[in-house]
Amino acid sequence: MISDQDHPAHAGGPGGSPETGQVQISVDAMGSDLGPAAVVAGCALSVRNNPHVHIILHGDTAVLEPLVARQPALTGRCVLRHAERTVTMEDKPSHVMRHGKGTSMWSTIEALSLGDAQAAVSCGNTGALMAVSMLLLRRMEGVSRPAIACLWPSLGKHRFNTMLDVGADVKAEPQDLLAYAIMGTTYFRNGFNEARPRVGLLNVGTEEHKGRAESKIAFDLIARHQETGRYEFVGFVEGSDIPSPRVDVIVTDGFTGNIALKTGEGTAKLVGDVLRESLRSSFISMLGALLSRRAFELVSARVDPRRVNGGVFLGLNGTVVKSHGSADATGVAAAIALAAKLAQSGYQGRMAERLVIAAQAAQESEPEGESE
Amino acid sequence: MISDQDHPAHAGGPGGSPETGQVQISVDAMGSDLGPAAVVAGCALSVRNNPHVHIILHGDTAVLEPLVARQPALTGRCVLRHAERTVTMEDKPSHVMRHGKGTSMWSTIEALSLGDAQAAVSCGNTGALMAVSMLLLRRMEGVSRPAIACLWPSLGKHRFNTMLDVGADVKAEPQDLLAYAIMGTTYFRNGFNEARPRVGLLNVGTEEHKGRAESKIAFDLIARHQETGRYEFVGFVEGSDIPSPRVDVIVTDGFTGNIALKTGEGTAKLVGDVLRESLRSSFISMLGALLSRRAFELVSARVDPRRVNGGVFLGLNGTVVKSHGSADATGVAAAIALAAKLAQSGYQGRMAERLVIAAQAAQESEPEGESE
Repeated sequence: MISDQDHPAHAGGPGGSPETGQVQISVDAMGSDLGPAAVVAGCALSVRNNPHVHIILHGDTAVLEPLVARQPALTGRCVLRHAERTVTMEDKPSHVMRHGKGTSMWSTIEALSLGDAQAAVSCGNTGALMAVSMLLLRRMEGVSRPAIACLWPSLGKHRFNTMLDVGADVKAEPQDLLAYAIMGTTYFRNGFNEARPRVGLLNVGTEEHKGRAESKIAFDLIARHQETGRYEFVGFVEGSDIPSPRVDVIVTDGFTGNIALKTGEGTAKLVGDVLRESLRSSFISMLGALLSRRAFELVSARVDPRRVNGGVFLGLNGTVVKSHGSADATGVAAAIALAAKLAQSGYQGRMAERLVIAAQAAQESEPEGESE
Repeated sequence: MISDQDHPAHAGGPGGSPETGQVQISVDAMGSDLGPAAVVAGCALSVRNNPHVHIILHGDTAVLEPLVARQPALTGRCVLRHAERTVTMEDKPSHVMRHGKGTSMWSTIEALSLGDAQAAVSCGNTGALMAVSMLLLRRMEGVSRPAIACLWPSLGKHRFNTMLDVGADVKAEPQDLLAYAIMGTTYFRNGFNEARPRVGLLNVGTEEHKGRAESKIAFDLIARHQETGRYEFVGFVEGSDIPSPRVDVIVTDGFTGNIALKTGEGTAKLVGDVLRESLRSSFISMLGALLSRRAFELVSARVDPRRVNGGVFLGLNGTVVKSHGSADATGVAAAIALAAKLAQSGYQGRMAERLVIAAQAAQESEPEGESE
């Protein structure tokens, strides 16, 4: 799915081996809700599915060694790095930033920052993972707020739209929203072979006069950089447009994006729960449901956001994929596959270039005295 | 559904006739996407269903007279008030505020402000309706930002939760969010016979340290006024909790609330579209769907937000219900029924009292120099 559209010459990225196409993925074995066995099983699945993937697995080796030994697929494809401690879901990001050295999460990102791996995957605490990633990988030039991008089931031809930020930062200035447009469209272009992705800015109406003052400033900025960013700006979009075929990338701040993401998940679950309950309400309905089972499975596969596993951190000097905390082996394998594809596409270089151009242009025009 | 829990002595409100239980509803006949015929049919349906409802219908009498004549149910139950002009969906609220006199929308709200009616209903332009309502009805004391409350399908015992603000104002200060908690719970208490509704503040996580600084200030304010407001505060809730049985009223600013509402509508529609498509994919699935048809209808009735017609404007000196622009006769009748119930419950008086107490308490404590 990932193409080399943006950077064919650099596939593999820094530290990779473009000649052979091999890719090292740094995986945090701890911090999953289902325990390290699910992560190890996911690693085994991913190396079986992809002959180019190699794993550096971080965590307590006393726990991991027997788990890895039970997976023949991992022989010669996985090395262990011992980390004594584990970041929990309750740990505050600021605390992990200061005291996280020696945890499996820290070790996972460190391997990426040292160039030992070309992408990293963790099922752990999202806030802590972003904090450690910012500290060890640093932000790209021109990015003041990195973002988390998610895939959203859509009615468009690619069957998915991308939305960002869905929770890295609760605020975003207009300049950040422009950076999100550039990052999101570069990600989408390489993920879905779409030369010129369409980007929309999330708002409470599609008319230009609606919304907050910041939204209007961001509207102008994003419209002005269509050529730099190689995207098409469709203007404001509403919550109901997130799965729409008229847009590929939806840009918003991390507060609104997180609430939209979870509202969508909650609504899909509500519809599913109510449907299941109704189908059990009579014998005829149950019989009907049995006959339609294959159709229900198709729907579940298409609209359940958990099937698309992996929020991607954008705007850092390194590719980090956040897997769902409750991902099973299939989910972990999907996150590793996504990380490998992104690392091999080399999309980071081109994204960095565009971000610098946009940041320079913004500095030169300095709209409304917004210099720092 | 609506009880007199809060104000049994004042049922009917100012200008009403509590002795006879009769209620006058002021209805804007124009501005519906389906034209005035749908609104007139909705009026006829509502007077047939409720012997206490009387209608004052506003619009072009040349158009309305023949439509009303065709509905025998309206004989003696509906008076017409001529208004030459109609507010369109494209009209800017600020323009309607200045030049809206003589439109059917203006006339509809004016009848309420003069005490001729006890509640008003319009299918027209939401922004314009709020602007005209604020101008003619004025805000309640202690309210700086009125709000629009919607009902959301839920898994709780009342089958609906309430969320506000879903689009009256794109900003909300902590003091506004407290007012929303008071207004929303008073509305819910009277709508669902729930003595002590549970209120949650929408945020990106449920831990107290998460979210924006304003959210934390609002958290403390809402927690402190549980006794004044006669509600239980459950703390922060996430987007996935909007349909949850652990909360009745969800409080947020109008930007986030509008995006959540439309994201929920969009997701429900997406699931429905994908399901329909999948069920058509094979003969067996189609047969199954046919057998389960009754179950699907039940689901559609429960989760389609359009079936619950009527966003209620809260915080004004008068009850205004905004019907969906595309509501058919059934939808218009549902909005009129809601307006009648609210008018008869007299919930406004008690709400006004609590808002004044909360505003005074806030002024006395003046947290962090927020005095004006």
